[in-house]
Amino acid sequence: MKKFIRISLLATCMTGGLCSAQIPASVIEDFKPSSANQEGKEYPQVNSEGRVRVQLSAPEAKMVQLDIGAVKYDLTKDTSGIWIGESAPQDEGFHYYQLNIDGASVPDPGSLYYYGASRWGSGIEIPAKDQDFYALKNVPHGQVREHIYYSKTNTKMRRCFVYTPPDYDKDIQKRYPVLYLQHGGGENETGWTAQGKAGLIMDNLIAEGKAVPFIIVMDNGSWRMPERDRTVPQSERPAGQWPPKGWADGFMKTLLDDIIPMIDANYRTLDDQQNRAMAGLSMGGMQTRIITLANPNVFAYMGMFSGGSISTEDIENAPGFKEKVKLVFISFGSSELENRRPGFGGDPKENTEKLKEAGMNAHFYVSPKTAHEWQTWRRSLYQYAQLLFK
Amino acid sequence: MKKFIRISLLATCMTGGLCSAQIPASVIEDFKPSSANQEGKEYPQVNSEGRVRVQLSAPEAKMVQLDIGAVKYDLTKDTSGIWIGESAPQDEGFHYYQLNIDGASVPDPGSLYYYGASRWGSGIEIPAKDQDFYALKNVPHGQVREHIYYSKTNTKMRRCFVYTPPDYDKDIQKRYPVLYLQHGGGENETGWTAQGKAGLIMDNLIAEGKAVPFIIVMDNGSWRMPERDRTVPQSERPAGQWPPKGWADGFMKTLLDDIIPMIDANYRTLDDQQNRAMAGLSMGGMQTRIITLANPNVFAYMGMFSGGSISTEDIENAPGFKEKVKLVFISFGSSELENRRPGFGGDPKENTEKLKEAGMNAHFYVSPKTAHEWQTWRRSLYQYAQLLFK
Repeated sequence: MKKFIRISLLATCMTGGLCSAQIPASVIEDFKPSSANQEGKEYPQVNSEGRVRVQLSAPEAKMVQLDIGAVKYDLTKDTSGIWIGESAPQDEGFHYYQLNIDGASVPDPGSLYYYGASRWGSGIEIPAKDQDFYALKNVPHGQVREHIYYSKTNTKMRRCFVYTPPDYDKDIQKRYPVLYLQHGGGENETGWTAQGKAGLIMDNLIAEGKAVPFIIVMDNGSWRMPERDRTVPQSERPAGQWPPKGWADGFMKTLLDDIIPMIDANYRTLDDQQNRAMAGLSMGGMQTRIITLANPNVFAYMGMFSGGSISTEDIENAPGFKEKVKLVFISFGSSELENRRPGFGGDPKENTEKLKEAGMNAHFYVSPKTAHEWQTWRRSLYQYAQLLFK
Repeated sequence: MKKFIRISLLATCMTGGLCSAQIPASVIEDFKPSSANQEGKEYPQVNSEGRVRVQLSAPEAKMVQLDIGAVKYDLTKDTSGIWIGESAPQDEGFHYYQLNIDGASVPDPGSLYYYGASRWGSGIEIPAKDQDFYALKNVPHGQVREHIYYSKTNTKMRRCFVYTPPDYDKDIQKRYPVLYLQHGGGENETGWTAQGKAGLIMDNLIAEGKAVPFIIVMDNGSWRMPERDRTVPQSERPAGQWPPKGWADGFMKTLLDDIIPMIDANYRTLDDQQNRAMAGLSMGGMQTRIITLANPNVFAYMGMFSGGSISTEDIENAPGFKEKVKLVFISFGSSELENRRPGFGGDPKENTEKLKEAGMNAHFYVSPKTAHEWQTWRRSLYQYAQLLFK
């Protein structure tokens, strides 16, 4: 019944553009501050149903709304000028949201801020039954390093974040495999550690002996053609060559010519194909598909989280891929598959089954009761990391 | 004349609490997006006078204000519902600010967000004539590492950021001196790299051969007494002992018992007194004063940026300090000294002169035309870093 209500709200929003929803009086009063709040801030809060309650002092405002999951919820004002209200129950995990104050869309001053939807904005955590796998624990922790470097391809300074596993600075002779891990559209190089909790996921997996230690490189895959190449018509740009045809092969050149050599020069990597993986979510998954199909000599493992799938036709057109690539990992959130969006290039589960029949090591994972959001991708990384470099 | 206007506005605010200011029509129309904007955002902007112009779409709002430097500026609305307006000229450097929408204080959706005033909020950069010393350049860059560790003193997991100099991972036999660098009140462990640009300042100094390479540790000095010790009356807590009397000796125990041993165990440090420095801004400067006076066997260099000074009486009551400490560095912004606030413990310049007369290596630095803000502290670090470990 809850699910039916949520789906019908979404349908209303999609047809009508803007929409708003009133919440019934039967809200369970066990709200607690969100774990994604700023230190010491009481709001936003979440209850055991997964409803989000926000509060804002705006004595002179006419209307304040909570905007989360493509639905707007009207808040109500008390006599002291404080607005308060709740959303419908949300899926477990992380969600972006914002407040609307008399027509202005702004971050909630109570939450921490995350980069998504092409802007820094509010985020909230709905406690998940499986949240232990990304919890902060007293286990050995790796480091997340901000690394600034010059990119010849982009003729400018760039930044990536590099996760080094807990023992990286203990045994200074040991070399490690590397995963190149990409964010989604409208996100950036901060997403996988902040929203994705990639560092904590790896620390916990390594502490439990479930994953071999490896380095993770998180760079910015949002790609704009340099000014100097914008005069070349798109029709004259063959895929994989320069000037590139689009965002995927544009980032491919940066990754192959700048990022990988820079990482191999600055970290104790195992720098051969057998010890190199790529994965990404959504747009990052589509980039992973194009880049690994075109470079089976570079990557031995590939993962696409909510970013489509690979068909037998794809690998027939990618010489060496079938023989050299040791893992194809495809994942989705369950409600993405239920409300399947066009453009995924065929049924992803069927595609993955056919890869298995063709003799590839292909895995298909579905995150229970999640959509095109970060809980799907945290769980995907958790599954994928356990299959790498073994 | 400009200066007189700004001071009189401040005076009005201080006596009246809230205040607002109207800007004359003679604003110079050479506004450019702030370098602290989110990627691709056109507003906020800054002009050559140092005025800040903000813009916000809020069609239904009655009143929108820019709140910067303890002054509120009313914006005006155009026919499409977009509010726009400017501040008076601001000092060079970084400033926290916020928007007020019908009584709600919120971050500007166009700016990046920084932790200060005990919340994540908007920041803006007024281009400074000397900004080259913290510019992002194509020079060798150090890394800023997020380091998670367990603190026995606080019985919980903590986080610090560690700057390692550019060659740290090249010559893996070399060991480095360490500076422990503290933020101010209402700030946290992110301040020195985000607002303070400590990493870029060091990269540039090292590239020019003006500073010796050293490690910088930036931890959280905001200290709350653990629940278990709150029953002990403050009068029964001798300074420097546990349970501690306040924030300075509370952080002192965390620093001495947890942070320094953790850093020496995990980084290639030179771990003796001669190779260890401490400095901090405002509250962090006051902590540096108390901690280094009490521990001359631990630190050889100390710096207080806008955080008071040290008198000859202080060092007479601190056995070993005069003999063992190789540098006392005291700094302020020029307008802090002009509008001198009470509680600094005597005239800081006179105090520093007396330390020199007593035979100590004492430095006094004044940042031109800046107040109790980050441009003062960036310049202070730039000066201080050149004096360390030589």
